[in-house]
Amino acid sequence: MPSYRIVVLPGDGIGPEVISQAVRVLETIATSSPEISLQLESHDFGGCAIDKHGDPLPPSTLQACQEADAILMGSIGGPKWGVDAKIRPEAGLLKLRKALGLYANIRPANFASDSLLDASPIKPELVKGVDMIVIRELIGGLYFGARQELGASAEQPDTAWDTMIYSISEVQRITRVAARIALAANPPLEIHSIDKANVLAASRLWRKVVTETLTNEFPQLKFDHHLVDSAAMLIVANPRKLNGVILTENLFGDILSDQSSVIPGSLGLLPSASLAGAPSAPSAPDFKPTSGIYEPIHGSAPDIAGQGIANPIGTILSAAMLLRYSFGLEKPAKAIEDAVRKVLDTGVRTKDLGGQAGSEEIGDLIVKEL
Amino acid sequence: MPSYRIVVLPGDGIGPEVISQAVRVLETIATSSPEISLQLESHDFGGCAIDKHGDPLPPSTLQACQEADAILMGSIGGPKWGVDAKIRPEAGLLKLRKALGLYANIRPANFASDSLLDASPIKPELVKGVDMIVIRELIGGLYFGARQELGASAEQPDTAWDTMIYSISEVQRITRVAARIALAANPPLEIHSIDKANVLAASRLWRKVVTETLTNEFPQLKFDHHLVDSAAMLIVANPRKLNGVILTENLFGDILSDQSSVIPGSLGLLPSASLAGAPSAPSAPDFKPTSGIYEPIHGSAPDIAGQGIANPIGTILSAAMLLRYSFGLEKPAKAIEDAVRKVLDTGVRTKDLGGQAGSEEIGDLIVKEL
Ligand SMILES: CC(C)[C@H](C(=O)O)[C@@H](O)C(=O)O
Ligand SMILES: CC(C)[C@H](C(=O)O)[C@@H](O)C(=O)O
Repeated sequence: MPSYRIVVLPGDGIGPEVISQAVRVLETIATSSPEISLQLESHDFGGCAIDKHGDPLPPSTLQACQEADAILMGSIGGPKWGVDAKIRPEAGLLKLRKALGLYANIRPANFASDSLLDASPIKPELVKGVDMIVIRELIGGLYFGARQELGASAEQPDTAWDTMIYSISEVQRITRVAARIALAANPPLEIHSIDKANVLAASRLWRKVVTETLTNEFPQLKFDHHLVDSAAMLIVANPRKLNGVILTENLFGDILSDQSSVIPGSLGLLPSASLAGAPSAPSAPDFKPTSGIYEPIHGSAPDIAGQGIANPIGTILSAAMLLRYSFGLEKPAKAIEDAVRKVLDTGVRTKDLGGQAGSEEIGDLIVKEL
Repeated sequence: MPSYRIVVLPGDGIGPEVISQAVRVLETIATSSPEISLQLESHDFGGCAIDKHGDPLPPSTLQACQEADAILMGSIGGPKWGVDAKIRPEAGLLKLRKALGLYANIRPANFASDSLLDASPIKPELVKGVDMIVIRELIGGLYFGARQELGASAEQPDTAWDTMIYSISEVQRITRVAARIALAANPPLEIHSIDKANVLAASRLWRKVVTETLTNEFPQLKFDHHLVDSAAMLIVANPRKLNGVILTENLFGDILSDQSSVIPGSLGLLPSASLAGAPSAPSAPDFKPTSGIYEPIHGSAPDIAGQGIANPIGTILSAAMLLRYSFGLEKPAKAIEDAVRKVLDTGVRTKDLGGQAGSEEIGDLIVKEL
């Protein structure tokens, strides 16, 4: 019997509250499936780790993450460790992504249940059927290129700069992740690659490598290219046009994944995965588990922390992604997603969606469905 | 009597059709105001200039633009001069912006008439009262920093890069433009500065300089900062929160100005200005005209070119901005805007808004209102 080691990073604000519901769900899966054994252990990460250890990513947390089969994270940050602070929770997150080689960020934006269509800020007739997966390159580009702070150089004391740099192999590997995920669906998803090739050299490389990789290695897949400005318009004006996989570089992905996550009406519902490898379809004979961080896309929401009213569904759906991508356990992953949909279909809602249900009540209902 | 020289660049696709209606409007203003004398002359620019002269920005066009008091542009580009072409219309546009020092791009996103609320993809209760002006730095950042194409370097043959670079003075001058425009309204507008200061050195410089410039030089103005990913969410989820001036760097401005321009429901309605200086309020004693390019924000729409059905309102409103910012002629600028609103209030619509009216009919109605 395989035993999987999951590191849990509850984090700050509402992080611990949403994490505890997802942990209950994972424990329910393990209890009811004798063939699955999960070992969970919690570690400090983010603002709480700054407070305790003076470091958002203490060495013991980093080591545990490196040895884990997968990581489940809550949310980090808050005004207490604001933009002007010397040591910031975000620095820990960027360091952890880089240290684990998590180059593929995966963010679905869809409706967990059609009963949620009206929660969208966009008109229901435009968003019905929206089903996009943003695949963002996560450890390259402007985030990790060479940079110079204001005042750091004697020759150019009054400028600051960052470098958007990509190599052929970095673009190849993220393109392969997008292709694998497109192929896992039946029929395969269409891929929309986003760049700014009419201006940027890094985007011209991006467009060329995406085109060659998909054409040569995945001739069965359909794909097209959009400029980032025009994609930002489409996501609002006609989002179904980008149904399928949206494949893009780090900064564009940061912007577009957040923009598209507004469509389903509550950030509290959406999960994410950051992977160190291309997942094959779990059913594929060549399935290779890959380590990764799984976390809801929402922030730490310090204003409602401790009240037990945070929506735990984004974290619970992240746990489902964890089972699927890191362990190849498609059946329990699907079971969690079905349970979430059934609960939402009954009309129960947390406060972010205009309802009254607390985090624990949602957890109870999902556990009962399972 | 001051005589103003306007260079007209009709461009490609529907450009000439929308331009001719805006020219009629300007001529109507000149005819009915004996104190205003306008000299208009057309030049080749964009794809049509590539076809005729092998250069999107022929020297004669550049010289005419440099000598003009203001430039009115249609739209350029099209599949004929696509991404793979050697010489591209966009290169001419970037070169013209840089040559004229047009560092301030100004793009209002609002409803020319409340009768248009329903045309928005976003729910009317969320967009009613949206009134944003995006002020984008236009000749710095990733667009004009050093770059290296794939294959151009022997040491790093498999990478490509671009540099996002800003200097203190570049950020100061665009901040002053934003402040001037905020102050021209009564009460003054709030300024929302957008950056990615939690990751980028250029953004940290941006945030520091914006803060210092506004605090020291414009203490009467209110302002705040947003991260670009969170701004992209707000523009969809709760756009009124960004009412006022959105101040940002070149690439973020490219994305966010396009995204916000979708809110009013038709790109065909929106104007833009790209200026070489900070306009004072035309009524201010220190008003200094500044040269600039004025153009609708829509593209050249080759699919409907030549049919006489393009919406000329974005170009006509651009002509109004031209009178205001480049010549200080507030009264005729306002008269054009009022005429447009009155015509829209009657319910006449071009095809992009679900109506039947042609470009010329809209031009007729606006001229009649004037
Ligand atoms: C916190 C920040 C550095 C991070 C990013 O920009 O990558 C966040 O916005 C995200 O998308 O996970
Ligand atoms: C055509 C392109 C180079 C240009 C830009 O990105 O600046 C356009 O998108 C714009 O916003 O005017």
